[in-house]
Amino acid sequence: MENKDIDAVVICSSTDTHAQIISEAAEAGKHIFCEKPIALDISKIDQAITAVKKAGVKLQVGFNRRFDPSFKKAKELVAKGTIGIPHLVRITSRDPEPPPISYVKVSGGIFLDMMIHDFDMARYLLDQEVVELMAVGSCLVDPAIGEAGDIDTAIVTLKYENGAWGTIDNSRKAVYGYDQRIEIFGSEGCVMVGNLKPTEVIVNSAKDTISDKPLYFFIERYQEAYLAEMEEFINCI
Amino acid sequence: MENKDIDAVVICSSTDTHAQIISEAAEAGKHIFCEKPIALDISKIDQAITAVKKAGVKLQVGFNRRFDPSFKKAKELVAKGTIGIPHLVRITSRDPEPPPISYVKVSGGIFLDMMIHDFDMARYLLDQEVVELMAVGSCLVDPAIGEAGDIDTAIVTLKYENGAWGTIDNSRKAVYGYDQRIEIFGSEGCVMVGNLKPTEVIVNSAKDTISDKPLYFFIERYQEAYLAEMEEFINCI
Amino acid sequence: MENKDIDAVVICSSTDTHAQIISEAAEAGKHIFCEKPIALDISKIDQAITAVKKAGVKLQVGFNRRFDPSFKKAKELVAKGTIGIPHLVRITSRDPEPPPISYVKVSGGIFLDMMIHDFDMARYLLDQEVVELMAVGSCLVDPAIGEAGDIDTAIVTLKYENGAWGTIDNSRKAVYGYDQRIEIFGSEGCVMVGNLKPTEVIVNSAKDTISDKPLYFFIERYQEAYLAEMEEFINCI
Amino acid sequence: MENKDIDAVVICSSTDTHAQIISEAAEAGKHIFCEKPIALDISKIDQAITAVKKAGVKLQVGFNRRFDPSFKKAKELVAKGTIGIPHLVRITSRDPEPPPISYVKVSGGIFLDMMIHDFDMARYLLDQEVVELMAVGSCLVDPAIGEAGDIDTAIVTLKYENGAWGTIDNSRKAVYGYDQRIEIFGSEGCVMVGNLKPTEVIVNSAKDTISDKPLYFFIERYQEAYLAEMEEFINCI
Repeated sequence: MENKDIDAVVICSSTDTHAQIISEAAEAGKHIFCEKPIALDISKIDQAITAVKKAGVKLQVGFNRRFDPSFKKAKELVAKGTIGIPHLVRITSRDPEPPPISYVKVSGGIFLDMMIHDFDMARYLLDQEVVELMAVGSCLVDPAIGEAGDIDTAIVTLKYENGAWGTIDNSRKAVYGYDQRIEIFGSEGCVMVGNLKPTEVIVNSAKDTISDKPLYFFIERYQEAYLAEMEEFINCI
Repeated sequence: MENKDIDAVVICSSTDTHAQIISEAAEAGKHIFCEKPIALDISKIDQAITAVKKAGVKLQVGFNRRFDPSFKKAKELVAKGTIGIPHLVRITSRDPEPPPISYVKVSGGIFLDMMIHDFDMARYLLDQEVVELMAVGSCLVDPAIGEAGDIDTAIVTLKYENGAWGTIDNSRKAVYGYDQRIEIFGSEGCVMVGNLKPTEVIVNSAKDTISDKPLYFFIERYQEAYLAEMEEFINCI
Repeated sequence: MENKDIDAVVICSSTDTHAQIISEAAEAGKHIFCEKPIALDISKIDQAITAVKKAGVKLQVGFNRRFDPSFKKAKELVAKGTIGIPHLVRITSRDPEPPPISYVKVSGGIFLDMMIHDFDMARYLLDQEVVELMAVGSCLVDPAIGEAGDIDTAIVTLKYENGAWGTIDNSRKAVYGYDQRIEIFGSEGCVMVGNLKPTEVIVNSAKDTISDKPLYFFIERYQEAYLAEMEEFINCI
Repeated sequence: MENKDIDAVVICSSTDTHAQIISEAAEAGKHIFCEKPIALDISKIDQAITAVKKAGVKLQVGFNRRFDPSFKKAKELVAKGTIGIPHLVRITSRDPEPPPISYVKVSGGIFLDMMIHDFDMARYLLDQEVVELMAVGSCLVDPAIGEAGDIDTAIVTLKYENGAWGTIDNSRKAVYGYDQRIEIFGSEGCVMVGNLKPTEVIVNSAKDTISDKPLYFFIERYQEAYLAEMEEFINCI
């Protein structure tokens, strides 16, 4: 923090340390890239943001999916009116396997730890705020997650400020890999983003037609997005 | 009804006549195929069913989608455990254009007229009852539908007796055609059914890759299902 | 043939009887639909056509694939210039299993029995004559086919009158079903037709992504085409 | 070449310089990675290889496509018998636009400059030598290419040592991007590799269904392959 040659810091430590490091870095005059979320407690988030504003430094929170070429293109198509006025948004987001129970316990729960990305995506895609939401869910994947006080399967229905509706579904375990799909339906059409696969190989066998399952997890799926995200941060500072 | 050579009747008249004709046909000893719904009023449905039971005739209600080869195969895969224990069901059902306002007024509303098929599909796919549901919706397609006392866009979240969750989304107007997709996600995988297209033509142009939009509406999409449905009725009687 | 109430005949008997029946039907003043080929011997074909012309009746040869909605649309797109000037045509045509050896012996060989459809398709797609061709092939599927004097795997390269090139590949045995694909590549793009499948079901499993194999054989694949073909015949007479 | 700290050289200069630099580098004891082709003249290739052998250094020629994850997986599936005994190989390879005429003049022609990759792929996929081939082609894209003594559209039919057949088609101009597809058909099935697209976005419009065209050219399409190729070279030395 005291090194004058360093202009910026990238915070990838555990969530409970984020707010404190942000404040320290801001005071030291460093620009900050911080992995989501800033904190699990809104007052800590406010403190961190106040420190950032006071110091006049830049803070970027790591919502990597905004930098994915497919999601970005979908958003741009919506913004330029390709599908008319949005009526429905659908976000599917399923992990290939649950995190360790030790992580679940400090994660803040499925909504703050996992669906946070989808809430961000929901706002990003329409460039609108969500004004209302209903959440349901339960523990269907692993009872140990329930014992840790969390759920592993959840559906949220949300309403946008301009009247559109959205649904998000999350599961902590999709055996076929990282399932990351979106769909925006409007008065003039529908934009969809499907999953990415490691190869374009298709096998026609005597039994069926076989292709790859989706990329395994976020490292594989959002490789391009992570690079673009960091480039954007560097361009901003 | 008095013609002894006739074993069965097929009722395709308007909804408000169904219950009465069912009772008459049952009394005349005819087997009955009746388009959905039997009535908009549960007491009328009960009367009709009582008449059918008393007469010992067979009654089949026209849930054509159960006879669609794709949905049928999806259900069979779920039944034989291909995707393990079901956790999430997702049904998308969007019409290419709204019916005339005169029809909207007597239709019973989007849930009884349109989503009724999806409620049936939801039960059919898992062979389970739904124990709880939350419905939201509004009028986004055409204000005249709102003036007629109905909505044109709706999302229902539902809970199955065994703990799985489901969502259904409906729109009265998908400019790209009849959008009929389902997805059942479980502990061991996911089964999806996509839309059908009139041809398998793909055009690679200097601008993009173009393929057909989905089949226009139920007549085109469920042609095979209607035939199979009627065959099933004939086989049953 | 003597029945005055009959306007037309449909000939589906074995190839060696076609030419004779055509002549008889023509003399009797009947319009004629005849399954391909008219004969294996060009002089017999000429005799049959002469009889038809003399009688002033109509003769349609059963090239069912011209009535397939996908191939028809591909041809129409080419005709209206969507892909510019055609440069390359590619036809894949593979049967799910070889016919009985007894049939192979009288079939006229793979080119007259099987690739005849693809030669017709090649001419149909560009509305141009083929001026030159090179054929290679061998017996890779079943030695018994070779012993019967035929081959079971063949590739033909052909040149169109306007300079475009084409390739056709045939196999008597594709274990995954009837493989019927075409592709026309031109100065402004490319039109492709893929295979049709019985359902639109996709399964995401822990191992891979699975969908249906193509429809089994011509009865399934060209059902719509056979109906349209017969309708066209009836409309013509 | 005299710098002792340098273990290896990478040759990306124009084709006419390759053989000479290879010999010099070999004499200097450097391992060599050289872009294809070594030379247009077989005696020069032999001289270069002799120099390499004499020096005991390693030489890798830049056939980048062998390192593409999709083609590699296809080859591995063939090698482990997934499709049984190969009967047919089909390689489609079309550039998005022709090189400058100045390049065409010194390129060695479409077969040595462009189809060379496909000849390599043909051998790579089956791990078999080609024993016979027939080539046809003409100038359909741009007459200037013809005036430069080359052709821009070509089809090659080839026969493998074990009896399988193959076809390769090349065009110097596919307006929709870099078209790089392969297909290996055998006694037990078929493996295909399709094109890669920049995003997984699909738009359903009132007119049709639209997705991305393929990646533009080799830099985009084979990015992963180039990295893997260079890694392999480094691992080898």
